[in-house]
Amino acid sequence: MKLPQYLSKPNALLFEKRCRNNIKRLKSIAEKAGVDFRPHFKTHQSAETGRWFLEEGITKITVTSVGMASYFAENGWTDITIAFPFFKGQTDQINRFAKNCKLTVFLADAESAKYLKENLKYPVQYKIEIDAGYNRSGIPFRDSDTINSVINTAGRSGKLNFAGFYAHDGATYQADSKPAVADIANRNFEAFSHLKEMYPGAHCSMGDTPSCSILTDFGPVDEITPGNFVFYDLMQLQIGSCSIEDIALFVEAPVAQIKKHTDQIIIHAGAAHLSKDFIMDDGNKVFGQMVYFDQSGRTFLIDGAYLSSLSQEHGVVEGAEKVLPYISDRGSVYICPVHSCLTANLFEYYTTPEGKTITKRILS
Amino acid sequence: MKLPQYLSKPNALLFEKRCRNNIKRLKSIAEKAGVDFRPHFKTHQSAETGRWFLEEGITKITVTSVGMASYFAENGWTDITIAFPFFKGQTDQINRFAKNCKLTVFLADAESAKYLKENLKYPVQYKIEIDAGYNRSGIPFRDSDTINSVINTAGRSGKLNFAGFYAHDGATYQADSKPAVADIANRNFEAFSHLKEMYPGAHCSMGDTPSCSILTDFGPVDEITPGNFVFYDLMQLQIGSCSIEDIALFVEAPVAQIKKHTDQIIIHAGAAHLSKDFIMDDGNKVFGQMVYFDQSGRTFLIDGAYLSSLSQEHGVVEGAEKVLPYISDRGSVYICPVHSCLTANLFEYYTTPEGKTITKRILS
Repeated sequence: MKLPQYLSKPNALLFEKRCRNNIKRLKSIAEKAGVDFRPHFKTHQSAETGRWFLEEGITKITVTSVGMASYFAENGWTDITIAFPFFKGQTDQINRFAKNCKLTVFLADAESAKYLKENLKYPVQYKIEIDAGYNRSGIPFRDSDTINSVINTAGRSGKLNFAGFYAHDGATYQADSKPAVADIANRNFEAFSHLKEMYPGAHCSMGDTPSCSILTDFGPVDEITPGNFVFYDLMQLQIGSCSIEDIALFVEAPVAQIKKHTDQIIIHAGAAHLSKDFIMDDGNKVFGQMVYFDQSGRTFLIDGAYLSSLSQEHGVVEGAEKVLPYISDRGSVYICPVHSCLTANLFEYYTTPEGKTITKRILS
Repeated sequence: MKLPQYLSKPNALLFEKRCRNNIKRLKSIAEKAGVDFRPHFKTHQSAETGRWFLEEGITKITVTSVGMASYFAENGWTDITIAFPFFKGQTDQINRFAKNCKLTVFLADAESAKYLKENLKYPVQYKIEIDAGYNRSGIPFRDSDTINSVINTAGRSGKLNFAGFYAHDGATYQADSKPAVADIANRNFEAFSHLKEMYPGAHCSMGDTPSCSILTDFGPVDEITPGNFVFYDLMQLQIGSCSIEDIALFVEAPVAQIKKHTDQIIIHAGAAHLSKDFIMDDGNKVFGQMVYFDQSGRTFLIDGAYLSSLSQEHGVVEGAEKVLPYISDRGSVYICPVHSCLTANLFEYYTTPEGKTITKRILS
């Protein structure tokens, strides 16, 4: 690792080859299953990482906000889905980049459809986000009245064109096994099958990383839109979506104090770098797992060594004795983050083990 | 509120007058108690907000990282404490700004003391962070061996000068009443009293916002260094550190979907804007409480309306019926954040209700 002596602040360490392999693997899963692949770029938020997708022939992407859509449109992407219910405040930005970009928005009610239709400068497509049981955003898939009111209000003027349905079932992130993931995916397949009967030919998308990593058959689904898979993380490892060697984002943190009396290490990496998602392991809250890399770059979890608490800038690592042999020459230790999307969002840029800086979009 | 029509993304709404009042009140608490006031700037991270402190005659500040110290040194601050155990990677930056800044660092072991002494270009002070029971960073206050080894290693060369002790007892953030806060403060007072016997004349600092907001007598403490009080938040309201009218930072979020069938609202504001700290209320996880402002700008909690879950960009609000009357003309709702430090850290700038942009430092 060719980097300056002694780490001065937390570093988001990105393994480019693993990212590229993750992209290849998910693309291959999509191809074998006969579904389109429209990866979600909210995880990496990086034009440079985006180019690794482009090099695999991927030209359609998903984002979560108009700000993120603008960033990627400015970086040459021309087919973008904004996977968030449209609200009126998005209109100005949509009108700014929809001229040169095939844009898909989500509509959740007739009022939004009416407003958007009346205020659009350029044609856009819309999908209807449906809810198959996760209970976040979307219209319950059996609520034909609301679905029809959106479709009828959007009309057939050619300005606001119906493009099908979408579901994100985040319940899979709480699943504890591959069969549990499959069960959750199935309720979405049933919802899509129902909708395809009602609206023949409707294009259906879904996007959670566990389903898209584990399944080989996507039933009625036409397109998958996962995002987290580009980096994976400890949560995905626990679910079974990936192996440790697939995880592509780690946080390297300076060691600030070794507390032999409590077998703890204080590191400079807190909620300001990792956010505060945790998993439960053996009755403990785990905010990140300590890892090391061997000479050939293989990754190993340090059993029993984990982040037990985070304040804004401090992290408390349990298992100091186990971690001490792996403190780097730079005075740092390595953390496998619980949730890479939130971790990545907190960094200004990534650094590869070779010392290359990967630029990204910052904040929202 | 003179702001553009329809909100396009989450907005960190900052009430300048409340901040200024909070600064005045804490300064007055310090003055009446006869202790120095060295506020922590990690909460707001804003040079502009810093000037409101300067206008109250405050010239000494606390920060958590060398990056934050550099930012405020560049913005004219000349007396800065870095409240984080020194690690070797901090040295270059310390040498860059210590020439024109009275800098205080924390030392937690003799090895750090030796390294810093040998590599310093300009004199700096150091404090020893002690641990009175919170069990985060710091040396256990009864561990004289470690304390003495630091002091002896730092020596008396005039380059690295002993400046006393510091304790941050974050246990008060989990306290459920004012007496509980006082109990925790007391264990720190006892620790400082012990240290003052061992090291007569040692200057002692402590910094948690609950103690500094609630107490009027700081016993052996010479200096207080709270940070969160500049904004306060829902957690501080629950503890009893502040009233709702003292809270100075809210998140204004676009409404994306009204789900009458579940009495929920989907907003654009997630973990990427609020982080993921929560409080428990009536058995529910609360990631933020919905509020409204009346004509005169007074703040009211909307009883029973709160954020029950956050994903990266989505927030789920319970109690849609109660919130509907308060959706603004901009299509937005207002959230009292659980933890303002982490929320503020996620925004590029603040906006006042009058439409003024308050610049800040971004990311770490």
